Amino acid sequence: MLYLIGLGLSDEKDITVKGLEAVKKAERVYLEAYTSILMIEKEKLEEFYGRPIITATRETVELESDEILKDADKVDVCFLVVGDPLGATTHTDLILRASTRGIPTQTIHNASIMTALGSTGLQMYNFGQAVSLPFYTQTWTPDSWYDRLEENSKYGMHTLVLLDIKVREQSEENMARGRLIYEPPRFMNPYQAFSQMLLTESKRHQPEGTEDEDGNVIPVTPTYMNPENTLAMSLSRIGTSTQRIIAGTLKELASLDEEEFGGPLHSVVVVGKRIHPLELEFAGRWCVGGDEGQWWKVAKEVYGCERETFE
Amino acid sequence: MLYLIGLGLSDEKDITVKGLEAVKKAERVYLEAYTSILMIEKEKLEEFYGRPIITATRETVELESDEILKDADKVDVCFLVVGDPLGATTHTDLILRASTRGIPTQTIHNASIMTALGSTGLQMYNFGQAVSLPFYTQTWTPDSWYDRLEENSKYGMHTLVLLDIKVREQSEENMARGRLIYEPPRFMNPYQAFSQMLLTESKRHQPEGTEDEDGNVIPVTPTYMNPENTLAMSLSRIGTSTQRIIAGTLKELASLDEEEFGGPLHSVVVVGKRIHPLELEFAGRWCVGGDEGQWWKVAKEVYGCERETFE
Repeated sequence: MLYLIGLGLSDEKDITVKGLEAVKKAERVYLEAYTSILMIEKEKLEEFYGRPIITATRETVELESDEILKDADKVDVCFLVVGDPLGATTHTDLILRASTRGIPTQTIHNASIMTALGSTGLQMYNFGQAVSLPFYTQTWTPDSWYDRLEENSKYGMHTLVLLDIKVREQSEENMARGRLIYEPPRFMNPYQAFSQMLLTESKRHQPEGTEDEDGNVIPVTPTYMNPENTLAMSLSRIGTSTQRIIAGTLKELASLDEEEFGGPLHSVVVVGKRIHPLELEFAGRWCVGGDEGQWWKVAKEVYGCERETFE
Repeated sequence: MLYLIGLGLSDEKDITVKGLEAVKKAERVYLEAYTSILMIEKEKLEEFYGRPIITATRETVELESDEILKDADKVDVCFLVVGDPLGATTHTDLILRASTRGIPTQTIHNASIMTALGSTGLQMYNFGQAVSLPFYTQTWTPDSWYDRLEENSKYGMHTLVLLDIKVREQSEENMARGRLIYEPPRFMNPYQAFSQMLLTESKRHQPEGTEDEDGNVIPVTPTYMNPENTLAMSLSRIGTSTQRIIAGTLKELASLDEEEFGGPLHSVVVVGKRIHPLELEFAGRWCVGGDEGQWWKVAKEVYGCERETFE
């Protein structure tokens, strides 16, 4: 049997009782280490599980899946994934490969950021499609995420923005020389995320009459993400004991220092217009600097949502 | 401390190790029993946890939250919720009430249908807002879910359709006589869901020139959910050992008997047009009657997605 087991969001004790039982009796245990990152050391997991763990890199899973699936029709093999095991395509691919080899599989689900974002007080069923924000460089600022966000915004849905992580990156020099030396992992901070979001916003929404490089007038599109009129939130280390959420207008959030958000992992939420006063009330407790003034002003004037008496 | 603890999707062993530790040392343990339903008896939970469990009805939580929060600033109280604890507004309400009383809270997340739907092979980030389908009656067929589905469909997003459950319902007679006798819980079967969906579809999309009761011509809207051209899936008992997924056109699925889907809990997915061949490949393994013919025909002709060679 091939078990795909979710590890949840934080530490070694977020595995389910069922998942732990499967790990303890498995012949081999792999830990997926490229689509997400657990915030504790592998050694700590090994100690808690009482089992050695083999790190599975993207290369292992995509090119050496035979190794992972070896004898899995006779013995139990566990494949551990941070969050829920079916959050990324790579793992459905592994199930398909097992299936064509006649190997039975069992998925043991767990929490992922997709459900844990309920911690914001925003309702899960009001979220549209999630988007991924990649690290921008001097020459590469891919902004297709903005189109998805506009689609959600058009119908008032909230948007979860997943922030890029870079694991097992090679420097250009090391890559050119064929050296398998990897840079330390990088995690996008909300500071950078908000700055990138404002950059794309300003590019997409030039003042009327602005011309592009060839002298053509850029069409003015409706502003879905005016920084002063858009409510947003940063979500840091959700599901851990140091979880931190900050709420405010995009402009307020973009003015905060990197340190305000603390260490990884982070994500960001852009609040949609179809919002309920209870959602605003809950989230308003985390306003920038503890000041809910701007939050409720924008809620009323832009989102059309007045504060209700809550007791 | 007030702990809100997710129980996951299936049985007593889906609680996380962290959640179980909190339950074992708590002064009082409540089980929320109205927004969802665990598929095992409370007694089995009590035996596994080694703790008595108090059932919390909607009335308890909304009207007697003081009882739940009593002394929670001094002792530990656990509030258990099927799935993830923050899937429903009621529980954020409980956190707000604790917060105003200065009671610290901790949320221990878990799997919910929102993440477990990755089991379909459809990618989570391609899902738009989730909708809830209520039980229709002779006189009451609320169809605002259809508007949300159209919004998702317009941009090619998948839609998760959550099916109604009725817990602690009173018969009209018992209600009239003030007797607190409750009907057995009811869970919507995909058989009923698909039939309701086709009913609303036919009402919304009358042939051109159709008049309503007052003789006004009903405007023809684009068909987003033509039964023969729409791919869908039923999701039954996701995360349990008897999990069953069936894929097909809406028309094919609607022709199946109630028994095909088996016991609760169920939900339904309507497949969006922005789909990847790998998603179709994975889901196609569960086609109605094992016949993928119609699935790939509609995928190609309507969804514009051709089958790729997969190995």
